[in-house]
Amino acid sequence: MSSDNILNYNTVDFDEEECALLIIDQTKLPNITEILHLTKAKDIWDAIYELKVRGAPAIGVAAAYGIYVLAERIEADDFDSFYAEFKKQKEYLDSSRPTAVNLSWALNRMDSCVQANKDLSIAEIKQKLKAEAKAIHAEDTRVCKSIGEHGITLIKQGFGVLTHCNAGQLATSKYGTATAPIYLAHEKGYNLRVFADETRPLLQGARLTSYELYAAGVDVTLICDNMASSVMKKGWVDAVFVGCDRVAANGDVANKIGTSGVAILAKRYGIPFYVCAPTSTIDLNTPTGDDIKIEERPADEVKKKWYEKPMAPEGVKVYNPAFDVTDNDLVTAIITENGIARAPYSESLKKMVR
Amino acid sequence: MSSDNILNYNTVDFDEEECALLIIDQTKLPNITEILHLTKAKDIWDAIYELKVRGAPAIGVAAAYGIYVLAERIEADDFDSFYAEFKKQKEYLDSSRPTAVNLSWALNRMDSCVQANKDLSIAEIKQKLKAEAKAIHAEDTRVCKSIGEHGITLIKQGFGVLTHCNAGQLATSKYGTATAPIYLAHEKGYNLRVFADETRPLLQGARLTSYELYAAGVDVTLICDNMASSVMKKGWVDAVFVGCDRVAANGDVANKIGTSGVAILAKRYGIPFYVCAPTSTIDLNTPTGDDIKIEERPADEVKKKWYEKPMAPEGVKVYNPAFDVTDNDLVTAIITENGIARAPYSESLKKMVR
Repeated sequence: MSSDNILNYNTVDFDEEECALLIIDQTKLPNITEILHLTKAKDIWDAIYELKVRGAPAIGVAAAYGIYVLAERIEADDFDSFYAEFKKQKEYLDSSRPTAVNLSWALNRMDSCVQANKDLSIAEIKQKLKAEAKAIHAEDTRVCKSIGEHGITLIKQGFGVLTHCNAGQLATSKYGTATAPIYLAHEKGYNLRVFADETRPLLQGARLTSYELYAAGVDVTLICDNMASSVMKKGWVDAVFVGCDRVAANGDVANKIGTSGVAILAKRYGIPFYVCAPTSTIDLNTPTGDDIKIEERPADEVKKKWYEKPMAPEGVKVYNPAFDVTDNDLVTAIITENGIARAPYSESLKKMVR
Repeated sequence: MSSDNILNYNTVDFDEEECALLIIDQTKLPNITEILHLTKAKDIWDAIYELKVRGAPAIGVAAAYGIYVLAERIEADDFDSFYAEFKKQKEYLDSSRPTAVNLSWALNRMDSCVQANKDLSIAEIKQKLKAEAKAIHAEDTRVCKSIGEHGITLIKQGFGVLTHCNAGQLATSKYGTATAPIYLAHEKGYNLRVFADETRPLLQGARLTSYELYAAGVDVTLICDNMASSVMKKGWVDAVFVGCDRVAANGDVANKIGTSGVAILAKRYGIPFYVCAPTSTIDLNTPTGDDIKIEERPADEVKKKWYEKPMAPEGVKVYNPAFDVTDNDLVTAIITENGIARAPYSESLKKMVR
């Protein structure tokens, strides 16, 4: 690997000296690798909203470091005024994106850390917060590795694997979720052939997944989203692995727009459809997929973004949901760090969340 | 309609004075409306290969005028040398794209015209060819209108309709195929709501379909291909109408890449899936979809075309088939100018081709 290999960078990191959240600006990949140093609430909010950092686990880690970085700068003499400001910042960051549960999950965990230590000094609480953010970061790496170890049991030598969007290293601290079994199998010489859906409109599959798998030496072929059916029909796909942004209690899965379509194709062609989900994305308080709020994003992401010229007239309406819900009957299994859950999910998921 | 409304232009036309094939350069839409005047074999071949003119029916009309324009310029004293040169030019044009049967259908019809008139003078044969090309052009308009009249019987007031790629006026002489029922219903005040898949990688749905429907005042919403599942799940789609490039004898349908995926989604959601097919696209000599040659196109269409910067690293492989085959069990009906064919297609299609 050369020194500018994307896999040598941390997707999300923390700079002690500056007390800054560090992220790779993923909107500039694959052409420019730029590390952003963020210390202000507005900049962190924008980075999440604009997908400079994205991927449910990475958003969680960024939110944890982000709220700590803001908390460190709160000037307060007593707990109540510190906590009031902390809550304000927390709610602000939480408003940046609605679908991925890891955002509020990480922020709530940081909030619990403050509350659990409210008898300490403000300076000591800040130290606890830093330690908690680092713990969330380290756990994410361990969780992804465990998902890989469970996931690889579902893969055989020479498998064709299809993935959608980016649930790779660039979506997590390391290894990725959907890519964790792929990276592990690659290390073991399984000779996989991976198909990456480009994933319109933001092209995370092209810009990020094909990029990071190629950098790792994995045999990866980029396709447009609408080519998945052809590739499956040709018999080139033995399994689909995707990440997720929120798993409802019944096993319905919210993930990047297009995921439900891939799942329906996989069912038609008799291909197993696996969802890789850290337990932090399992939300037992959300009964079904219908209860998950789906973020809608601006029309210009479809008509103008990336392009030299607009691809549709100004007046044409656009519907641009960022996520969709895959019904649980389409999901062959949900792979967590604690094991593999299968239907009925209303029972199996509870056992995964310890 | 303003004078620069795209619907005021002919997608394909013929200039008597210059003896030139005229086409709108569709690769420049929706931003620039440029009419190309073509008189040379290489330019006509390029225009078809590069999709400056595209859509199975429009390719047929362009090929008919194109071969006439070339034939008019053949300098030959006797039939045999005229016909040898004609055949050479015909085979050259026929090699520009493999999947749409209308290309060879139109060229074969022009060839038959030459053979049927071989006892006439070369000058008279050329006149016959011009008349035949004009007849093909005029028939296409009538055929599309008839498809609209049959298709509208499948539409009700307030229907949501989804379409993929462009089988609109820009793909034909007029009315389009998949859009013919839409335009007719729009004229009758049916208040349809149309969803146009953008259709990667060449974005015919965004650049052409959303453009022409919007220009006609139809309520059209542009979506990325991977959003069709969400739109269907919401109950917004009552019927899917698509065009086609070749129908096999068993009712398998080759159409723009992604069509088979839309059909699979429609089946999952219980939505009828209609294919609009002039009988010129029905190829009873092709037994099944497996026998249809699928064109593969360059990687840069996926990675670079339209974009300011490349969206994937140079070394990443791309699979870029331009078409796919929709299995006949997914097709609710095939709408032709001669009526509506339903399963079993091996019987019903024969009755359509008169």
